[in-house]
Amino acid sequence: MSSHPHGARAASPKKSTPQKRDPEATSQALLDAAVVEFSEHGFAGARVDRIAAIAGANKQLVYHYFGNKDELYRITLERVYKQIRDREQELHLSDLHPVAAMETLIAFSFDYLAEHPEFIAMLNDENRLGAPHLKASENVANMHSPLVKLIEETLARGIEAGVFNDRFGPVNLYLSIAGLSYFYFSNQNTLSVIFERDLGSPAQIARRRQHVIDFAMAAIISK
Amino acid sequence: MSSHPHGARAASPKKSTPQKRDPEATSQALLDAAVVEFSEHGFAGARVDRIAAIAGANKQLVYHYFGNKDELYRITLERVYKQIRDREQELHLSDLHPVAAMETLIAFSFDYLAEHPEFIAMLNDENRLGAPHLKASENVANMHSPLVKLIEETLARGIEAGVFNDRFGPVNLYLSIAGLSYFYFSNQNTLSVIFERDLGSPAQIARRRQHVIDFAMAAIISK
Repeated sequence: MSSHPHGARAASPKKSTPQKRDPEATSQALLDAAVVEFSEHGFAGARVDRIAAIAGANKQLVYHYFGNKDELYRITLERVYKQIRDREQELHLSDLHPVAAMETLIAFSFDYLAEHPEFIAMLNDENRLGAPHLKASENVANMHSPLVKLIEETLARGIEAGVFNDRFGPVNLYLSIAGLSYFYFSNQNTLSVIFERDLGSPAQIARRRQHVIDFAMAAIISK
Repeated sequence: MSSHPHGARAASPKKSTPQKRDPEATSQALLDAAVVEFSEHGFAGARVDRIAAIAGANKQLVYHYFGNKDELYRITLERVYKQIRDREQELHLSDLHPVAAMETLIAFSFDYLAEHPEFIAMLNDENRLGAPHLKASENVANMHSPLVKLIEETLARGIEAGVFNDRFGPVNLYLSIAGLSYFYFSNQNTLSVIFERDLGSPAQIARRRQHVIDFAMAAIISK
């Protein structure tokens, strides 16, 4: 990633333009703007000059820092993946009883999607494109959802303690826990029309959240 | 829906151009083409002249039959919803024991999404737009997934027979059954990269299908 601002800064700090005085801050502002622009308009509809304008930088700086639009999209995608990874560090599941740990994990997965529509929007767009930016990423291992590892560890503890059944593998369990929440948020607009209720309301979200925890736990708890 | 070809045909069959000789067939061809175009390019990226070209009709005929691009999208969306509705008529769940009926229903929900990527693509696009076409539809009641009613009936039979627990309502159960399958297919491209396996392969799809059935049934079966 030779175009990354950190590398550029370390190699040769430049102060030729005001925008380059703090490359770190500028690049963060550009990436924040890129998340907004890409999640709102998708890769195809997003405009680099709008990203620059939101960040208060000039368009050339975007290319200077991030190469082309594809690279900027890839780095933005890596960033939104990294954010969920950072958040899971705060869970401290190993301190909890396996049942409480699994419930915490499911709730976290739900809450994260509830609070990060831009994550869902970018994943949907990347999927529609056929995941070219993810394929081009050298950091895919880091984008592997940390939830899978947490599920695996928590599941193993619960099976050992005799509270969980051993019917489901961690990857399928991850896909199920994620799917129970993801569909609700990704399809919230159409589902709200069809069921004639605002699925985005706090009351509906709270009800769905409890269902997702109860439903998944009912499947996992040993019988 | 005054712009609908059926209404137009009944009111005044015209044969002024070759394409109007069989309005029914032409309108079907246009809608087939619209499904392809909209699911591939989304509402914003889709081009009406490309839809006309695929169907072998002229662009003006699209407007004549369907009004504007928004109306064409709405009718196309209604059509893909109707297709899943038609399919469920073939299930005959009431002939089956509640457990077999529920498994059939979950498998159907999975298989339908596996076989209809255009349905997922259109739902994703409509959700990104904020569901304006669904809101404009007068047929929302018909788009209400028939699966919810089937789930409700099957659930009630199973509870009465003592084989299902009564912890989950039919709407939440529908959202869970749909979500378990939907996420796998809608996010197949990114998930395949992250998990380093082709989730679209027949073997992976078969494994996921069995998991979805087992996982949902484990939650629903009474303990």
